[in-house]
Amino acid sequence: MSLKQLLESYRQDINQVLEQQLEQRVSAAVQLQAAMRYALVLGGKRVRPFLSHSVGEICGADRATLDVAAAAVECIHAYSLIHDDLPAMDDDDLRRGQPTCHRAFDEATAILAGDALQTLAFELLSEQSLAVPSERQLKMLAVLSRASGSRGMCGGQALDLAATNQQLSEPQLEQVHNLKTGALITAAVQLGVLAGSEEAQAYYADFTAFATLLGLAFQVQDDILDVVSSTETLGKTNGKDEAANKSTYVTLLGLEAAQVKLQQLHQKALQALQRIPYNTTILEQFAEQLLKRDH
Amino acid sequence: MSLKQLLESYRQDINQVLEQQLEQRVSAAVQLQAAMRYALVLGGKRVRPFLSHSVGEICGADRATLDVAAAAVECIHAYSLIHDDLPAMDDDDLRRGQPTCHRAFDEATAILAGDALQTLAFELLSEQSLAVPSERQLKMLAVLSRASGSRGMCGGQALDLAATNQQLSEPQLEQVHNLKTGALITAAVQLGVLAGSEEAQAYYADFTAFATLLGLAFQVQDDILDVVSSTETLGKTNGKDEAANKSTYVTLLGLEAAQVKLQQLHQKALQALQRIPYNTTILEQFAEQLLKRDH
Repeated sequence: MSLKQLLESYRQDINQVLEQQLEQRVSAAVQLQAAMRYALVLGGKRVRPFLSHSVGEICGADRATLDVAAAAVECIHAYSLIHDDLPAMDDDDLRRGQPTCHRAFDEATAILAGDALQTLAFELLSEQSLAVPSERQLKMLAVLSRASGSRGMCGGQALDLAATNQQLSEPQLEQVHNLKTGALITAAVQLGVLAGSEEAQAYYADFTAFATLLGLAFQVQDDILDVVSSTETLGKTNGKDEAANKSTYVTLLGLEAAQVKLQQLHQKALQALQRIPYNTTILEQFAEQLLKRDH
Repeated sequence: MSLKQLLESYRQDINQVLEQQLEQRVSAAVQLQAAMRYALVLGGKRVRPFLSHSVGEICGADRATLDVAAAAVECIHAYSLIHDDLPAMDDDDLRRGQPTCHRAFDEATAILAGDALQTLAFELLSEQSLAVPSERQLKMLAVLSRASGSRGMCGGQALDLAATNQQLSEPQLEQVHNLKTGALITAAVQLGVLAGSEEAQAYYADFTAFATLLGLAFQVQDDILDVVSSTETLGKTNGKDEAANKSTYVTLLGLEAAQVKLQQLHQKALQALQRIPYNTTILEQFAEQLLKRDH
């Protein structure tokens, strides 16, 4: 199966799993449940579920266990998008071309839908009997919660908000990215490993390094694309990051050095994979596609 | 030790545990961490931690395990208060005489602090090695997450918001209360049992019944006090619930029938305790004090 087919297959799979899990949990709060479904099921590239599934399969994990893990990660991702879009945060009206949750419903419902989706992630991972030892299941919960909270994604979002109109150093910028987006991408990969065989646990650190480097490379490239595509295709001299007065790798390092950094991170990510004695071709292909995209 | 002394001892204990757990988890997001601490550590009667601890001790639970369980429940409670107070929800400026979190900080920080406190609850229960079998620890996570999400507290909050200016039936009102406040009170008790001995698990259903009845009785009494104290002490004819156009047990049943219902619920709660062959005097005293309060 080609990477494209595999991505599409995982995307369909996770959409189905998310629908099923929502249907199995009927809330008396009809509006709340509709808002959760709206935010969770409609759209999304499903990068994180792809990572959980592909890493998990490399590590010999049970498919149903991966479904649960991937769904839990996606619930956290969806909740964070709802709350990021709120008027008090980024105040966005559209996401993926659709009205944001607080626009489609109302602000109170959006806050609660985000809250309940976060909870759902932990319901999913704790309620079901997964094909791993209970200690490992607890570790999966610990990994996901740590990556989501004040020392992970949520902390990164707070740092990012505080950083508007601030000049960050490169280590500070890296910290923001590692927390805001890197932590959950890394957790998606770690859950895949944790769902795998006992033997595969030996490569937990290597998979983790791959994920962290990939996540950061993705951000560097995002910053590059923000400048390159806005200049070339929109005829504007400033990208939206610069307009929003945000520090980026391009404003910090300059375009050329940012491109060198992207290549270095990509190479290091591949080196981390080479330390793993399994067939990781699919992850190499995925990194290639993700980091060579032009939009 | 008298009930009053015991309540105060548990209150001090939980405050110390919460402080320690926050200190052990230093976030780079300084403002976020300050807001979490503000909401979590300052004040509160700590009813839920008291229930986890007292039930846990009756069931022979390990003290450190109860500390973690009680802290997790209190994190969920604190997060729900931050979000309930937001402008898009109840829009409250004060809580326990102090500025609400979004007033003391800002709205974005308050949203994130609530988010991160919810996560912290699941970090606490999953990261630490508790003195229970791993399967039981997973059950504790499942119980807390279910009680917090769309089929528990968060669903209740959504129903409550939807119910403003609506005439509810008694079963509907009961559902709102059972979800909005009852679910977490019940979870606090259930975590106490789950932290206990193997033998104590046989009384899980009885403790659960006690908690559900106590939680509902508390709400009925709240509705009664809203009318009685506002009329007698403030000289107003309407309580704040009626002013906010909310259905209450008093508006639904009338004052006298609401008082009869309160007594019935109290009696049933005591009957549930009588089915448990342990010394549950402390819980009887607690119910007595809670349900005979006049403010």
